[in-house]
Amino acid sequence: MASYSSPIVVLDSGLGGLTVVRELQTALPDEDIAYFGDTARLPYGSKTAATVTRFVDQIITFLLPLQPKHVVIACNTATALALPALRARFPMLPISGVVEPGAKAAIVAAGAKHCPAIGVIATDATVRSKAYDRAIHRRRSLATVWQLPTPILVPLIEDGRTTSDPLVKLALQQYLAPLVKHGIDVLVLGCTHYPVYRELIEQMLGASVPVIDSARQCAQDVGSRLRNAGMLRGTSPASVADGSSAQRGSLRCYVTDDPQRFQRLAPRFLGVEIDAPVWVSPDELYVQRPNGPVPLSVPA
Amino acid sequence: MASYSSPIVVLDSGLGGLTVVRELQTALPDEDIAYFGDTARLPYGSKTAATVTRFVDQIITFLLPLQPKHVVIACNTATALALPALRARFPMLPISGVVEPGAKAAIVAAGAKHCPAIGVIATDATVRSKAYDRAIHRRRSLATVWQLPTPILVPLIEDGRTTSDPLVKLALQQYLAPLVKHGIDVLVLGCTHYPVYRELIEQMLGASVPVIDSARQCAQDVGSRLRNAGMLRGTSPASVADGSSAQRGSLRCYVTDDPQRFQRLAPRFLGVEIDAPVWVSPDELYVQRPNGPVPLSVPA
Repeated sequence: MASYSSPIVVLDSGLGGLTVVRELQTALPDEDIAYFGDTARLPYGSKTAATVTRFVDQIITFLLPLQPKHVVIACNTATALALPALRARFPMLPISGVVEPGAKAAIVAAGAKHCPAIGVIATDATVRSKAYDRAIHRRRSLATVWQLPTPILVPLIEDGRTTSDPLVKLALQQYLAPLVKHGIDVLVLGCTHYPVYRELIEQMLGASVPVIDSARQCAQDVGSRLRNAGMLRGTSPASVADGSSAQRGSLRCYVTDDPQRFQRLAPRFLGVEIDAPVWVSPDELYVQRPNGPVPLSVPA
Repeated sequence: MASYSSPIVVLDSGLGGLTVVRELQTALPDEDIAYFGDTARLPYGSKTAATVTRFVDQIITFLLPLQPKHVVIACNTATALALPALRARFPMLPISGVVEPGAKAAIVAAGAKHCPAIGVIATDATVRSKAYDRAIHRRRSLATVWQLPTPILVPLIEDGRTTSDPLVKLALQQYLAPLVKHGIDVLVLGCTHYPVYRELIEQMLGASVPVIDSARQCAQDVGSRLRNAGMLRGTSPASVADGSSAQRGSLRCYVTDDPQRFQRLAPRFLGVEIDAPVWVSPDELYVQRPNGPVPLSVPA
């Protein structure tokens, strides 16, 4: 049974979700966090809803013994493709994602505009799911949403390329040009990797276009949910407000492949070093199925 | 028990291995081919030897009921990381890969040069394994081998970008510049995806640098092995030589995710349309372990 002292579980296909952990550690420095990166099967962004749902289902099942008080799907693709199915599979577990908070923040940033033009850059799978489209239109039905798949950005970031690299500049120019042409009012970074390139994206769009970081919005959303449920651990609002928010909770990472590489690259996303992650063989994810067999259908 | 009429199994993490199938169909048009693309868990190029070996072990185990007469690891990463372990796990099964044929062809292309400079472009994992380095030095100990990880090329190819795209041109320029500077005598395309960009790579290197396509070399190697074993199906050398080599054998494809996308993109690699692939859930790969449990160790 989860209590206020239980950990928050954060999961992603790889490293990107650590940008959410970074924001969680800033907003909720007392919380213990268990992070799962599915590095043996990443990326999720080019895969189907059936496959991504199955993978995330396995990860949550594996982490249930930690009795998490909240599960954060810190991956836009997994949120877009799998969140409703996962909530149905684990009805007793509070699960949230990154799409709704990002969409909400985009509407706030658009201000009083009745028909704002909102750009979203994301993986192929997130764009195909139309999850941002729906989340934005629920809040402002006359908004125009320009969703753009930007599948080369994750490989560029995972390759360690910075914004001084001409290839990164050209890729961003190619991707952002149609959005600039459409005259978007707000841009949503619809993938937890993208904050790594945030500064250059802001420069290319100009100061008048706010850039929404779904990682930050997601962390604030988790804070509100835990506060409303009376499940926050010790953090008084004062300690956050007065800046005395050095991380005091623990962070334990689990990965399905190459813990050394994960530990080496983690600071790029988290801002600080991490302890050696625990390796979880994908085989272990196939052992337990407490909710019974999952119906299998051809992924499309 | 395999016979001359058994199929050849070809496997890869995704679509790239179809370039090997294309060459096999040209060289051995009577052979039945079963192709397995592990699209739920691709790519392999950024993953560890332990993980890739486990994945390919599962795939071969799954396909054993087809009684293959030969298994082709049509993926440089899987060949480099896993081939010796797989041969040890399946001692009765002839298994070959793409690295040795590529290295052999590079030495032939280097001609009489005593100390040729040989460039190899490949995934991170293939480069780290030093498999090409070893395979080339076994044949010409004084060769200089310039191995270069080119991890952005697969995402560009999978994104459907052609060589007229400025991003593709810039990526290839960045990657090939140091090899041109080193004055390489031969370039090996050490990933079965790369032949898609072969023409532009040849232009950039100039006519004096032969470009070795590991897919073509691999197919010729498989032909020799089957011929030597008396396991070729009907194809007389004459029918190949006189050009009457229209494909007469069958091709059946199996994928672990998104059969529709695989069918749509296959012609880019194979040159012709394919029938709808069979979907194999990753769950099915965890059911049978006829060779007993695999020892698990932390992948690094």
